[in-house]
Amino acid sequence: IQGHKRFRRREFEFSLFSVPLDLLMDGYNPVESPTGSPKSFIYLVIASQIFGLLAVVLTAIWLGKFWGGFSWTDARTLFNYHPLFSVLGLVFLYGDSILVFRVFRSYRKLPVKILHAVLHILAFLFGVLGIKAAFDMHNALSIPNLYSLHSWLGITAIVVFGLQWIGGLIGFLVPQTPQIARSKLLPIHVTFGSFLYLLMIGVCISGIIEKNFFSKTYSVLNARELIGNLIGVVLVIFGGLIFYLTQHPNYRRIESVPPEIKSRK
Amino acid sequence: IQGHKRFRRREFEFSLFSVPLDLLMDGYNPVESPTGSPKSFIYLVIASQIFGLLAVVLTAIWLGKFWGGFSWTDARTLFNYHPLFSVLGLVFLYGDSILVFRVFRSYRKLPVKILHAVLHILAFLFGVLGIKAAFDMHNALSIPNLYSLHSWLGITAIVVFGLQWIGGLIGFLVPQTPQIARSKLLPIHVTFGSFLYLLMIGVCISGIIEKNFFSKTYSVLNARELIGNLIGVVLVIFGGLIFYLTQHPNYRRIESVPPEIKSRK
Repeated sequence: IQGHKRFRRREFEFSLFSVPLDLLMDGYNPVESPTGSPKSFIYLVIASQIFGLLAVVLTAIWLGKFWGGFSWTDARTLFNYHPLFSVLGLVFLYGDSILVFRVFRSYRKLPVKILHAVLHILAFLFGVLGIKAAFDMHNALSIPNLYSLHSWLGITAIVVFGLQWIGGLIGFLVPQTPQIARSKLLPIHVTFGSFLYLLMIGVCISGIIEKNFFSKTYSVLNARELIGNLIGVVLVIFGGLIFYLTQHPNYRRIESVPPEIKSRK
Repeated sequence: IQGHKRFRRREFEFSLFSVPLDLLMDGYNPVESPTGSPKSFIYLVIASQIFGLLAVVLTAIWLGKFWGGFSWTDARTLFNYHPLFSVLGLVFLYGDSILVFRVFRSYRKLPVKILHAVLHILAFLFGVLGIKAAFDMHNALSIPNLYSLHSWLGITAIVVFGLQWIGGLIGFLVPQTPQIARSKLLPIHVTFGSFLYLLMIGVCISGIIEKNFFSKTYSVLNARELIGNLIGVVLVIFGGLIFYLTQHPNYRRIESVPPEIKSRK
């Protein structure tokens, strides 16, 4: 909130990041411009965390209580780690990992980038472990692998996610990467990452539908299927909040003017 | 392409639109800034149209050849209008309706807005007609309505889409709406619209999965299920291209300087 009163450099800004192209404009103080209410930001962040945690908790209850619980040794319940880890990693942690650039938008960039990278690799590892659980179950019960649209999109998304992580590490955390390469890579990284995030939610929704169809009495809407549907709705609300918070220009990064620009005056 | 050489006003830009907040900066000519290759823009637009049309054609073949064809009188095949109209309206036309702000980014805004509104109402009408087909089939065959997550999300998305259209009409086409209200509404309209668009694709994917599951032999991956999966992949590629084209800052709207700003100098 304090940050709002600090100098905010006009920038050629992208969705989640900002690239200092218009260094000419360092004299412009946009205090009068509608920078939006920071209160709305805080409330929306809190709401996002409530819906994100709700999605994880509902998924744990859904699988733990209605689909036989969790086990590393029984093939049938081993599968249940797949939806749980996917929602925890690929939706909740992934979403929060994007959000750190907003929540810490008045902080120095490097530690925020590191946090982003750490949350993302955790998300990735949960995703991979969840996928392993699905394969192990399929193989143990001689169910064919990778036939559904859910699996096609999911496996593609996780591979691209891994490549995107490596690209981000080389592009934005290796100090040797030149600034010009960074500013070219940035909009691609951000656009790709945002799309991939929403794709992950779409993949989760298609997974919930598959799971609900496996119960054969979907249309009766027992508690089991009802909770499945509800998780889908909560995931969409969480995704929508993360998308709004990262896209709305009012919540963009606040930069203090670097000394080298000030000295140019 | 010509437009790239014209004066480009620095603006507080959002994803799809641009809001003239920093009128102070009208002397800044960012010819040297990396405005990206217009060639890449044209190729990506062509690619998007190929994938968009491919999605519509594949859906028509899928339902026409593998799911019994189309009929307004037979309840079973009446349903087939539902996926066809959804893909045509809620994905292809919706996507192109967003894209017009990029394709015609050096044109005057009003005709582009009208085109956007017309394409959107067409998309909406196709969506509603498709939903009616689904309800009519369900009712004729005594299948329960609105039990699946696909239907929950789909019905919500179409209602919000309708409200968003009315909000857009009042906000941006009624001349009486004051400029300050427009600039407050704009990021909400854009963010909401983009999210809704990707949600529509997610809903279509979940619908394809439902349809494939109804064929009972999904895991064998006959031509029927294979084409279903393929449509999902094409939809994601189309959605990704539209998202990239509308999000990447290089393809943003080119504004010539309005006379009233020039005269302020």
